[in-house]
Amino acid sequence: MNLIIFTENDIIEKSTISLSDRRFDHINSIHKASIGDLLKVGKLEGKMGTGEIISISEKKIDLKIELSKEPPKPIPLTLIMAMSRPKSFKKALHYAIAMGIKEIHVTRTWRVDKSYLNSPILNDESLYEQSLLALEQSKDTILPEITIHKQFKPFVEDILSNKISKKLALLAHPYTQKICPKNLKEPSFLFIGPEGGLIDYEVKLLEKIGFETVTIGERILRIENAIPAIIGRLY
Amino acid sequence: MNLIIFTENDIIEKSTISLSDRRFDHINSIHKASIGDLLKVGKLEGKMGTGEIISISEKKIDLKIELSKEPPKPIPLTLIMAMSRPKSFKKALHYAIAMGIKEIHVTRTWRVDKSYLNSPILNDESLYEQSLLALEQSKDTILPEITIHKQFKPFVEDILSNKISKKLALLAHPYTQKICPKNLKEPSFLFIGPEGGLIDYEVKLLEKIGFETVTIGERILRIENAIPAIIGRLY
Repeated sequence: MNLIIFTENDIIEKSTISLSDRRFDHINSIHKASIGDLLKVGKLEGKMGTGEIISISEKKIDLKIELSKEPPKPIPLTLIMAMSRPKSFKKALHYAIAMGIKEIHVTRTWRVDKSYLNSPILNDESLYEQSLLALEQSKDTILPEITIHKQFKPFVEDILSNKISKKLALLAHPYTQKICPKNLKEPSFLFIGPEGGLIDYEVKLLEKIGFETVTIGERILRIENAIPAIIGRLY
Repeated sequence: MNLIIFTENDIIEKSTISLSDRRFDHINSIHKASIGDLLKVGKLEGKMGTGEIISISEKKIDLKIELSKEPPKPIPLTLIMAMSRPKSFKKALHYAIAMGIKEIHVTRTWRVDKSYLNSPILNDESLYEQSLLALEQSKDTILPEITIHKQFKPFVEDILSNKISKKLALLAHPYTQKICPKNLKEPSFLFIGPEGGLIDYEVKLLEKIGFETVTIGERILRIENAIPAIIGRLY
């Protein structure tokens, strides 16, 4: 937890917050904090700054806050990923959010095990929690928007095709010749298929709505490895 | 296991290998293979190609192999990482090897918990196994060289300083102004500090022997997230 994130609910009076949950435990156990200490804090969806510990009891800790710094700029990439094994998805999601992605779509594709889409990891509450953890890690306060699409075709044809309109849209695919671009100055869309890849029909549908199929090399990377590697390459 | 890797020990006669361990289990359970099927195989430290299943018994599977393809080119980056929590290290190591890094140094630094260096994950056997798994995932046959350094100062002054001589050497550090380069054409060295960062003395020592301190942005990433992000950015 490199940033302690609070919400309206934690404010007890102007510029003072009171924490009693896992953030309290964290401050107590990791920071071994005492009165007067300054911690890095940020308001969810708002500014970041410092919080000075003004009281500690057995169950809660109060901080006087001062916020002055804007959160870091988002990465202008819309990530679309096929749902993967929940353990793999959890890592991939964390890395994407920690790197600054603010719009994430998760979709089923042909080679995605149907059960994955019913994983509790995709519940709103779980996604919120995963997002918060990644923001606390990376020192950011802006939640990503995460949308789950249980059907590939209507998502691609009705939603994605309108979203990308004429923007740069890249489909990462190991078996193609065109090399993935680097160091973009413009916003883009990135589609990452599942373990085992997309089927031809899916690749063709994505190409039809404007995706370019690109490769980052012959090596086959796990989803959670490919995502930070490609984001790092693009921005 | 995208590539079935074999060694001299698996060869029963010219161009025929016999597998009976976890590779056998994998072929049986995941590929549900039958006689005549072609699988992707590679000889450790050698070429890659196909293996045709010529016999399957309850305990082993024999493949007729044909090797023609060179393994993918390595990434010309020497990675030096501070030892991290073993779970985190395991992921970071996998991603680095899967992306094609062939020389990895793991070192203690001031903020590395001493117990981490005694983790069984750093045993030769464990490192070999981790390496193999990453090669099987990424379809490569060349093992990385992994060296463990239990003391920072002699490693940096006596070994690393000679290694880097006048080559590009980058120290990833969140709190600096200079932006990490992108898209290198030349070989380079990358030093990634521990969770919590390097101490000033360590940064100065690395700068003294020729490291440039660079940042990839304000966000603080976990080691296993930073490594693929930076490799993707550099090559």
